Amino acid sequence: MTAPIRAAALGGGHGLFNTITALRYLTPDVTAIVTVGDDGGSSGRLRNELGGIPPGDLRMALAALMGAPAAIDHWNAVDPAVARRHKRWARILQHRLGGYGALAGHPVGNLMLAGVEELTGDVVEALDAMVDLFGIDGRVLPMSTVPLVIEADVTGLESDPRVSRVIRGQVAVATTPGTVRRVRVNPFEPVGCDEAAAAIIDADVVTLGPGSWFSSVIPHVLVPSQVRALKSTNARKVLFVNLANEPGETTGFSVERHLHVLHAHADTVGVDDVVVDAASVPAGAERDHLVRAAASFGARLVVADLAVPGTHEHDPRKSANTLSRLLSDHSDR
Amino acid sequence: MTAPIRAAALGGGHGLFNTITALRYLTPDVTAIVTVGDDGGSSGRLRNELGGIPPGDLRMALAALMGAPAAIDHWNAVDPAVARRHKRWARILQHRLGGYGALAGHPVGNLMLAGVEELTGDVVEALDAMVDLFGIDGRVLPMSTVPLVIEADVTGLESDPRVSRVIRGQVAVATTPGTVRRVRVNPFEPVGCDEAAAAIIDADVVTLGPGSWFSSVIPHVLVPSQVRALKSTNARKVLFVNLANEPGETTGFSVERHLHVLHAHADTVGVDDVVVDAASVPAGAERDHLVRAAASFGARLVVADLAVPGTHEHDPRKSANTLSRLLSDHSDR
Repeated sequence: MTAPIRAAALGGGHGLFNTITALRYLTPDVTAIVTVGDDGGSSGRLRNELGGIPPGDLRMALAALMGAPAAIDHWNAVDPAVARRHKRWARILQHRLGGYGALAGHPVGNLMLAGVEELTGDVVEALDAMVDLFGIDGRVLPMSTVPLVIEADVTGLESDPRVSRVIRGQVAVATTPGTVRRVRVNPFEPVGCDEAAAAIIDADVVTLGPGSWFSSVIPHVLVPSQVRALKSTNARKVLFVNLANEPGETTGFSVERHLHVLHAHADTVGVDDVVVDAASVPAGAERDHLVRAAASFGARLVVADLAVPGTHEHDPRKSANTLSRLLSDHSDR
Repeated sequence: MTAPIRAAALGGGHGLFNTITALRYLTPDVTAIVTVGDDGGSSGRLRNELGGIPPGDLRMALAALMGAPAAIDHWNAVDPAVARRHKRWARILQHRLGGYGALAGHPVGNLMLAGVEELTGDVVEALDAMVDLFGIDGRVLPMSTVPLVIEADVTGLESDPRVSRVIRGQVAVATTPGTVRRVRVNPFEPVGCDEAAAAIIDADVVTLGPGSWFSSVIPHVLVPSQVRALKSTNARKVLFVNLANEPGETTGFSVERHLHVLHAHADTVGVDDVVVDAASVPAGAERDHLVRAAASFGARLVVADLAVPGTHEHDPRKSANTLSRLLSDHSDR
């Protein structure tokens, strides 16, 4: 029996949920490394009230690891009672309280995580306690052990298009009608999570993206310890670019522009593969530009059918197939 | 190997926490049956917001079963990782969120339980899901599957001492400056919990009390299905009377008066043993009155050293010793 592949998945929100689900088809040893800049919704309210790490993206990653179809299939074969428990609690973690009161909208898992973190005073200990309680395969870690504030330079908000304004907070950045030019995190060069850096260094494969490009993907390369880990790991590093025309912060961004803005924030981080959806890749000279943009990371361009038809979402099964193919080609990089 | 004793513990709040801890020294097979009339604090807020069963007393019973010293000792011998998990999560369930916001004061376990109940729509399923998740020995059940409102006839609130007023809500009843004469639950003759009735019928020993007499103990005999179960069970039925001078609803009540008010609400429910603390038992003729009050339930009076010295609380170890002695005497009733 060979040891399972060790995977580290960097991202946040639904994009990371998707990648975790994909990686789980390949291995039970997935460490999710999660952005901690959210200031909206339940996470924002908990962050304001209790002062801890915004739990939303962490909770989604726990639910993804626990409820992934591949994980449920595995446990159904080994111990159906565990499969039932995992399926049920993955749903409970995600369930948002109802009513019309102070609790409305808080997912159960956010409240648990915030409570355990408050009691232990340590977000990594809190996450490990959740993983231990549920008996989850894999691990969830924050990219920084302090809550971060996302800040962006945004143009197009004044009549003079050259004027750039600073927009602060993930929700504000994600919903700005202007054009995001650059993002920072505050505190600048934040303390990383040692366990996350170690997981990147020990991994066989590291994924980054897809996800909200400025608020969930780029922040990962703004944490110095994480950048150092990405540079020193021998893992295969795979960048998943969002599907074309994904609405949000990057409305109208081409794949090439996604690569350019990431590179502008992380010109020293190399990547092995830039994975893009076939439908997002233009033909002719523009495709050459894309190959060149990938090459700026030292990466080759991997074009594959990735989308759930008719949506802007990756199909985890298709992402898994692509990853599987890349990993079996590991020698040829 | 003989089957463990089956115990059912009826009560609510700290009194029930205490009895569960005591019973756990005797057996891992403890079913806690819990009042559902609380309208104060976190439970009251959750009940108002989400409309479910007030979770506070249920959460305390789960924490008592999981964190009981006898349970932790057992698991330390069998699997120390489980002992550590149970110790940690018993504490987390009880931990009240801090801050100055909408969540302040909610115990983590209340939020979990409320969320699971909201999602499943079934409080018994929610409790069983918690027991399954944590791997708790025993079970926690509500005495009714609908939330109840405690109502009391109270005298002494007007200048004419004969005038009785209706006071509504557990907190209002527990803090009234008047004298509680009688309590009711609303809805009247509420639907019981089938699983709770079955646990009473199948038990070897059933305990009632100690606890807030009007709001946690007497309500148990106001649920018709539970009264029927108490009448038909072959279990030894043990009534724990509060220690003398316990502050609260029954300030200044003698042990005898505790028995009289309970009997006034439940004149058809028999009891085998009325257990009172030695320091609460008067001498001489008054002691004879107490023996007669116990006899009104068909019970003998059992006098034992039960208190944690200098407090109004039962020492679970001492309660366990007394119970153990009663059960080994089972033949002589």
